[in-house]
Amino acid sequence: MLKNFIQEVVSTKNDRLSAKIQAHLNDLTKPLGSLGRLEEFAMQYCLCRGSEKSSIATAMLFTFAGDHGITAEKITPFPSEVTTQMVMNMAMGGAAVTVMCKKAGFEYSVVDMGVNADFPDHPLIIKKKVGRGTKTFLNGSAMSSDQCNTALQSGYEVGTQAKADLFGIGEMGIGNSSSAAALYSLLLNVEPDRTTGPGTGSHGDLLERKKRIISDAVAFHRKSWDGTPLEALCRVGGFEIAGMVGLIMGAATKRVPVVVDGFIASSAALVAMRMAPVVKEYLYFSHASAESFHKGFLELEGIRPILDLDMRLGEGTGSVLAMQIIEQAMACYNTMATFSSAGVSNKE
Amino acid sequence: MLKNFIQEVVSTKNDRLSAKIQAHLNDLTKPLGSLGRLEEFAMQYCLCRGSEKSSIATAMLFTFAGDHGITAEKITPFPSEVTTQMVMNMAMGGAAVTVMCKKAGFEYSVVDMGVNADFPDHPLIIKKKVGRGTKTFLNGSAMSSDQCNTALQSGYEVGTQAKADLFGIGEMGIGNSSSAAALYSLLLNVEPDRTTGPGTGSHGDLLERKKRIISDAVAFHRKSWDGTPLEALCRVGGFEIAGMVGLIMGAATKRVPVVVDGFIASSAALVAMRMAPVVKEYLYFSHASAESFHKGFLELEGIRPILDLDMRLGEGTGSVLAMQIIEQAMACYNTMATFSSAGVSNKE
Repeated sequence: MLKNFIQEVVSTKNDRLSAKIQAHLNDLTKPLGSLGRLEEFAMQYCLCRGSEKSSIATAMLFTFAGDHGITAEKITPFPSEVTTQMVMNMAMGGAAVTVMCKKAGFEYSVVDMGVNADFPDHPLIIKKKVGRGTKTFLNGSAMSSDQCNTALQSGYEVGTQAKADLFGIGEMGIGNSSSAAALYSLLLNVEPDRTTGPGTGSHGDLLERKKRIISDAVAFHRKSWDGTPLEALCRVGGFEIAGMVGLIMGAATKRVPVVVDGFIASSAALVAMRMAPVVKEYLYFSHASAESFHKGFLELEGIRPILDLDMRLGEGTGSVLAMQIIEQAMACYNTMATFSSAGVSNKE
Repeated sequence: MLKNFIQEVVSTKNDRLSAKIQAHLNDLTKPLGSLGRLEEFAMQYCLCRGSEKSSIATAMLFTFAGDHGITAEKITPFPSEVTTQMVMNMAMGGAAVTVMCKKAGFEYSVVDMGVNADFPDHPLIIKKKVGRGTKTFLNGSAMSSDQCNTALQSGYEVGTQAKADLFGIGEMGIGNSSSAAALYSLLLNVEPDRTTGPGTGSHGDLLERKKRIISDAVAFHRKSWDGTPLEALCRVGGFEIAGMVGLIMGAATKRVPVVVDGFIASSAALVAMRMAPVVKEYLYFSHASAESFHKGFLELEGIRPILDLDMRLGEGTGSVLAMQIIEQAMACYNTMATFSSAGVSNKE
């Protein structure tokens, strides 16, 4: 199944289409290239959609939620129940990401990939629960192989079934900055001391403990890991991280670009890019998180994020802000006047 | 008159109010400080308005337009007529800034401060014409003292009469990157070779010529300039730059923050800050322009811009994007749930 959906993602590269898009950008009433990265965003968008006539009518943000067995190792200042509480807060409109989506006019859903609670039926909650939280990955696998595949498949279905011209992703899951740190360490071969940061607020002794736990866990898994991104995800990831990997694959299959949030969502993007490098062409990296290693990851992968606002909230909050900018880039692309249509003189 | 409106601007500093705003930010359902600079933007906004109950219901963007006598020195690749053509393009909705304002739901006006053309009556054009373009400042003053004061006064009136909770400013004026470069050179005592960049697209020989002209002009004015920001503005500024200085003063008097666009709008902000340093508390600097010295200015003044997207279009395009982010910061501030109201557990 995984192999199938990896093969469905095709490169967006297309020289003839690029030339058409560039010609249109150059004909808009502005000095050549003066919209800077907004022109790059518009180019990427049109290439992803495979047409110079692309536009964004609807955009949708998904928060993937899941609980983490690693919290049993006492590495986070918030109790695990906060995952459940925040999912309800998102559904009720009180979380930062829901406030922002409402303001931006974006559709929104929170996807229960594996929260340790049963939720009522709610129009904003998509139920894809794989389990009631992962197991601790300190000295075992967070997910079984079946669970991981089910989570990937569920995320993929969300991505292929949702109807929108632009997707954004974010996450909620107490403990998931530990999973992300371990994923970065395995996939980028960087020591956990560097990939582990405070997350929601582990400082001092708590941060030292978190680093020690993740170091031990990564050392344990390195001994028998088969080196594949799939097994890394299964061993140290989380249900919501696997869900985001699946969504990215599903969206890319449908040629819909995905805006990636911060430290944890980026670890899902990294897994997806290691499974199928071409997936990177469909991704926008919304912002540089304040979580210290996020900039390290972005540099290692040669990615310049859209924003750098010291945010470290997750949920998809950085994605929403970047999606508004991409939306403006496409509004300019589609509705600005051209030099000829507006009777504006071009460069002499 | 100038002295009057400078005295009306008061500092926003207020420890008791800061503490109230911070307490509210800390009570929102998110890890402490995790919205990063969005929390800083909300704090600044509330302090400017003087109340912890502030919100942004309406936002308004002004593009100040004017023509420049310095274009007679042939330092720009676009003909002067483009100023007029672009003002009409803005009024008709085809310019980048108007496209963006429409998408963002912001009110918009273009202010004719001194374009070399007569415009028809149009709901989006505010007529404040001081003259049909400035004189060349190569070896004389761009504006007379009366003209400069009239332009300041007109901008001030726009700022005090407009009704909105947040203002953004930008500009249009072929030749005005030369005025801005000369203003930076005079007010920051930096050589024109460093402050002068390509503007809309002066490269190679044209850029060398532009640098030589501005160097000569700055050398000429340094000989007899009285050292005041007002006289610098009068000597090498422009009607639209003076208009923006006036708007900043008017808005600050009414305690409405102003979002400043790129290289040229920032030169107006610099004039305003040199006239009344406290004005800086009312300003958001939207983005780092690709025009090379803009980052130099921001560093010298200790300003971290909100965005860095290689934009160099002007018009207020960077302001619009930053205003959307400030709007989101205030939406979070006002409508996120609190830990107690949402039943979310706080840090253990």
